[in-house]
Amino acid sequence: MKIFLIGSGNVATQLGKAFKRCGHKIVFVYSPTISHASKLGKELKTRFGKMPDAVSEFLADVYIIAVKDDAISEVVKKLPNLKNSLVIHTSGATDISVLKKKFKNCGVLWQVQTLKARTQMDFRKVPMVIEASNPSAEKKLRQLANDLSRKVYLLNSHQRRVLHVGAVWVNNFPNHLYYLAESLLKKHDLPFELFGPLILSTAESGMKNPMASQTGPAKRNDKKTMNAHLKLLPDKNYRELYKRISKSILKLQNQND
Amino acid sequence: MKIFLIGSGNVATQLGKAFKRCGHKIVFVYSPTISHASKLGKELKTRFGKMPDAVSEFLADVYIIAVKDDAISEVVKKLPNLKNSLVIHTSGATDISVLKKKFKNCGVLWQVQTLKARTQMDFRKVPMVIEASNPSAEKKLRQLANDLSRKVYLLNSHQRRVLHVGAVWVNNFPNHLYYLAESLLKKHDLPFELFGPLILSTAESGMKNPMASQTGPAKRNDKKTMNAHLKLLPDKNYRELYKRISKSILKLQNQND
Repeated sequence: MKIFLIGSGNVATQLGKAFKRCGHKIVFVYSPTISHASKLGKELKTRFGKMPDAVSEFLADVYIIAVKDDAISEVVKKLPNLKNSLVIHTSGATDISVLKKKFKNCGVLWQVQTLKARTQMDFRKVPMVIEASNPSAEKKLRQLANDLSRKVYLLNSHQRRVLHVGAVWVNNFPNHLYYLAESLLKKHDLPFELFGPLILSTAESGMKNPMASQTGPAKRNDKKTMNAHLKLLPDKNYRELYKRISKSILKLQNQND
Repeated sequence: MKIFLIGSGNVATQLGKAFKRCGHKIVFVYSPTISHASKLGKELKTRFGKMPDAVSEFLADVYIIAVKDDAISEVVKKLPNLKNSLVIHTSGATDISVLKKKFKNCGVLWQVQTLKARTQMDFRKVPMVIEASNPSAEKKLRQLANDLSRKVYLLNSHQRRVLHVGAVWVNNFPNHLYYLAESLLKKHDLPFELFGPLILSTAESGMKNPMASQTGPAKRNDKKTMNAHLKLLPDKNYRELYKRISKSILKLQNQND
């Protein structure tokens, strides 16, 4: 398919490269910042520009809006009607309705994974979540998604929003806990590499069965150990978080006992 | 070396098997529960029993106390002086002093990893933390630890306690967050497998550089997204945790800006 790429960030870069590897043709890269458009355009060996009217000039089967969430509606305004093409956005948190208002054939393609611009992304195992405005748009979008990944899920906008919240719980929050652990170790001249294997094995067992993988003093309601831990924590922020999360673990334990 | 194993849980089982694989000889498995002693003794093809006086009968170079933390001092009481041997415990949270009171040559051997009884544990990449009462005990203990792992760290009891608290932050707490995410997804008929790759990649980047890996609405202080997320959370416990952890992420962000 001929793809017109709107955006030049991590998602646009990774999707552009991945679709090109699959044999699709990227016909144009549009970004309001010409240096960004130029960089990605050159990487993808295709045309690029900062003027939105390129959309009418370079016709495509699919228009991919891969810009920041709050810039999507601005892009939608600038685009012509594109009746015969599929217009998709790539945001986990944004409803399909922002596109439906203007485009008959539209959809959402969202990868449940954080993307970095530089390293080549292997999409095959990345869950791709899709949503479409009608069956023919869905068919086209599913083809595209299947080209990238072996795991494609058709979900509605509400389910996708729930996934987006869940991603905060399994990505942003654990990462912050790693950071706090690293800072704690630094204060005691301990290298964070000590925790590498434990972090990995926790992820590997937790992603399968977090209920069975739960251990620790909070689960056992082992107050002696928890009090000893609280004394070793460096400040109020650590102590409040420790107590709050332990309370939640214990609450869950009591529910399941 | 000749090893006398006290205990029959996950740690005793994994250490017993691993030391045997390295060529050490397990001379006896002692556990007050005879069925446990028997099971592990048979697995290790060695003698076993529930009477502590076996200690005087089956002399060893190393006595490994691998029992629950609060049972260590009871075991210490039951043991004779064992002047010429090394006596070690395997607890992250327990001071070496519990052994020093009675044994001249003593130490601690603690793996920074959760152990399961069944699957064979490859200790080579598992960080092993050691502490010893004197240089000759340290030499012997370091030999043992080096036989198991390529990553051996000599730390004091205080540093080990800090590591033990840190392990709660990188194991117990993230696992609980995985559980909450799984429950949230279940409520919306979404399969938890959707988060497998994201959980793994979060662990892989966070174990190297959690500061650089932090993303999300809390880091950006994106109140609109956070409020939308709070509305999607099913109960007060979720909302309180979400707010508390987001507050900590934002606080850190402000410190580093």
